[in-house]
Amino acid sequence: MVQKPSIPKGTRDFGQREMAGRNYIFDTIKGVFKTFGYSQIDTPAMENLSTLLGKYGEEGDKLLFRVLNSGDAFGKVDLESFRDEEGKVNSVALSKEVCEKGLRYDLTVPFARFVVQHQNEITFPFKRFQIQPVWRADRPQKGRYREFYQCDVDVIGSRSQLCELELVQIVDRVFSLLDVNVLVKINNRKVLTGFAEICGFPDKVVDITVAIDKLDKIGLEAVEEEMRGKGLTDSAIEVIEQILKLSGTTSEKIASMRSLMGGGSASGLVSETGLKGLDELEELFGLVEAAGVSSPVEIDLSLARGLNYYTGAIFEVKALDFAIGSICGGGRYDNLTGIFGLPGMSGVGISFGADRIYDVLMGLDKFPKDLKSFTTLLFANMGPAETRYLIPVAKELRDRGVAVEIYPDSSKLKKQFDYADRKSIPFLSITGENEMVAGQVNVKNLVSGEQKLFKKDDIEAIMAFLGQPVEK
Amino acid sequence: MVQKPSIPKGTRDFGQREMAGRNYIFDTIKGVFKTFGYSQIDTPAMENLSTLLGKYGEEGDKLLFRVLNSGDAFGKVDLESFRDEEGKVNSVALSKEVCEKGLRYDLTVPFARFVVQHQNEITFPFKRFQIQPVWRADRPQKGRYREFYQCDVDVIGSRSQLCELELVQIVDRVFSLLDVNVLVKINNRKVLTGFAEICGFPDKVVDITVAIDKLDKIGLEAVEEEMRGKGLTDSAIEVIEQILKLSGTTSEKIASMRSLMGGGSASGLVSETGLKGLDELEELFGLVEAAGVSSPVEIDLSLARGLNYYTGAIFEVKALDFAIGSICGGGRYDNLTGIFGLPGMSGVGISFGADRIYDVLMGLDKFPKDLKSFTTLLFANMGPAETRYLIPVAKELRDRGVAVEIYPDSSKLKKQFDYADRKSIPFLSITGENEMVAGQVNVKNLVSGEQKLFKKDDIEAIMAFLGQPVEK
Repeated sequence: MVQKPSIPKGTRDFGQREMAGRNYIFDTIKGVFKTFGYSQIDTPAMENLSTLLGKYGEEGDKLLFRVLNSGDAFGKVDLESFRDEEGKVNSVALSKEVCEKGLRYDLTVPFARFVVQHQNEITFPFKRFQIQPVWRADRPQKGRYREFYQCDVDVIGSRSQLCELELVQIVDRVFSLLDVNVLVKINNRKVLTGFAEICGFPDKVVDITVAIDKLDKIGLEAVEEEMRGKGLTDSAIEVIEQILKLSGTTSEKIASMRSLMGGGSASGLVSETGLKGLDELEELFGLVEAAGVSSPVEIDLSLARGLNYYTGAIFEVKALDFAIGSICGGGRYDNLTGIFGLPGMSGVGISFGADRIYDVLMGLDKFPKDLKSFTTLLFANMGPAETRYLIPVAKELRDRGVAVEIYPDSSKLKKQFDYADRKSIPFLSITGENEMVAGQVNVKNLVSGEQKLFKKDDIEAIMAFLGQPVEK
Repeated sequence: MVQKPSIPKGTRDFGQREMAGRNYIFDTIKGVFKTFGYSQIDTPAMENLSTLLGKYGEEGDKLLFRVLNSGDAFGKVDLESFRDEEGKVNSVALSKEVCEKGLRYDLTVPFARFVVQHQNEITFPFKRFQIQPVWRADRPQKGRYREFYQCDVDVIGSRSQLCELELVQIVDRVFSLLDVNVLVKINNRKVLTGFAEICGFPDKVVDITVAIDKLDKIGLEAVEEEMRGKGLTDSAIEVIEQILKLSGTTSEKIASMRSLMGGGSASGLVSETGLKGLDELEELFGLVEAAGVSSPVEIDLSLARGLNYYTGAIFEVKALDFAIGSICGGGRYDNLTGIFGLPGMSGVGISFGADRIYDVLMGLDKFPKDLKSFTTLLFANMGPAETRYLIPVAKELRDRGVAVEIYPDSSKLKKQFDYADRKSIPFLSITGENEMVAGQVNVKNLVSGEQKLFKKDDIEAIMAFLGQPVEK
């Protein structure tokens, strides 16, 4: 017996209904991107490993899928030279020797590579989006896959806060179209740097941000304890306490932070970087207000995603009515293309998490109802003569954009009904000899039960009965 | 100095204009597929090598890209056991040991795997399309890539010739929408088998088809010479001569072939399979006529693509006004899923060659002119106050689907004009302080030079000036 085939763990097949849902999400997002003047690029699934290695940290390097060189991959390799003193093979070194290519791990590094490679053809500021799968040799688990789509939008070549505003507007519009309530959280890397500076520990940005993040979960005392463990002094902790106690509206918070950064904190230290970050935040919130963004937008000082390469704004989006992690996130980076030899390019971007957005729409039952049927009208097959009679009718409807099927075999009607039912086809035509002789077509609305006879060439009347827009 | 980054040979980046062209092709094709009730599936890029190996012949196995197992791929492998007597490493065997997965080589085998794996969830006849990249470690050359998209449409689970008709109609409609004149060539595997049978050499189908194919190029005598070399007898060659001399309309050709197959050839042999193939051809051409297909459709007895697994109709589509190989092809197969343990499933499908169709549209200048501009209107940036004034206007236009940009920086106007020019943006707004004070917006048509002032909230008038459809 042949074994039933399967797919690699952590990968997925998407059937027709899942694809319809995914395409609905992608088409909505793409439509919004386009109204802001962003357009699509595609990069190859395989990149040279020299492009990918060292860009995601040591852990990331391990998670890269490597593609074996084609041809006689091992023929010219001295396998012995890859053994250590105990005779064990060094897989990392050997795999570098026999694999020159790897699968894309994200869309950010290929984008940076693209910008540098094509810098002379590109018009800056460069507004691009990219929707492609990425691959990671992560341990598969619920909600984590080895192949998944990323959906990135970035503008590179401008430092204007208008770019940040656009991304907030894009998020607002996308989730308004998807009918999902979201909260947009904003932070700024320069402000986080500023906090570390006025604490007197400019190199402890990460520790201080982690501490701020834990406040809700473990409380002020535990946070202070942890800070001491990290080597922070009492006076530094006093400053952190001042930060943690910030409250009020966004503008009140910004004003209080401005006072702390300007020398008004317990340490009396001033942070120019922090003040610059506050200018950015203030400008962005002013623009968000001018734009009439309808989703709530708030400052979240604990937001630290991608801390290692973000240099300005940091974004995260959460669904308000469905418990799932962040569904969208991003930030500003000043040195994305520096790794490939093009310094000084500032950009900002966000990434939509398609899998999670899918789960949110499923969980909240927000997918449009008509996504589950692909065919509007099924012509039952009553025999060869009836079928030939109907083929031109089907053609006229299809040419006008209606999805029409003729059942291919003149099977028992029960079987054809089942087909319509399983495919959720809303209209059925059982046009037999009598209708054919009379030059008519019978159409039944399977939902309401209403049934009507049409002249076979009165396509507009049939379209109207099918609920299809009739062109004038 | 950092080396300028590059991508693996045989792969490509697609910039914004190429993507717009490719999306235009894919969207057109998808739109037509949908009107025939086909819907999309996606399968993972990586398949288990056990799914892929042995499906594409020995040569195909060599062209598979193999993905190195993640983790310590070589750690548990006894490298020594992969050496032959001369100490040379057997790359094929070793790569099987260290690679369990490979990249998809086509969409056909993953489709067969999908049908078998999900047979209990699928409604048959199963009408699916799939548009995804495939990877082949072929020697890269002009027009041949290591990563390229396939665009397949198949129906599986019916033997009706209505399925073949639908594919012909799909081809006809797609190329009519793309404004490309095509010739649809049809052959039938059973007819080819029939020819071999009435020649008395039922196992020489391939040789005989190749001979028929060469007639145009090398002439009758050379073909006969070659046939003798393959071991065919004089009487067999006499039958081939009779086949080669077939002429007339499609129905005349079918009638002549029917007479040959029925015992009227020089050999007097009868082929039941051949007669069955002629029934299929006759039925299909009858349906094509009933459907009013507008592209020319003709029988081509030399058409032999995929001879090894096609069992009925064979299709090929050529562009009439542009010299390039076939741009679309396919056929009927009776045993696609048998390799995975599900016998008796007949299906038929075709594949659109996106790269070649792109070349045809470029060569014939058939891409819509508006594909090269992504943004309809650029608001020049005259400073922060003007920008804030314009943000709500931009929002209203975007919400109605118009692609609008606000230049992010208040750079010199020359630079902003250049940006509009390089991006082929057709409308520019230079709205300065005067307009702002008057509550107006200035819009200029950069093509005609016409310039107009609008009230800032008269969005419908602005839409009309931009040539955008205004909703009622």
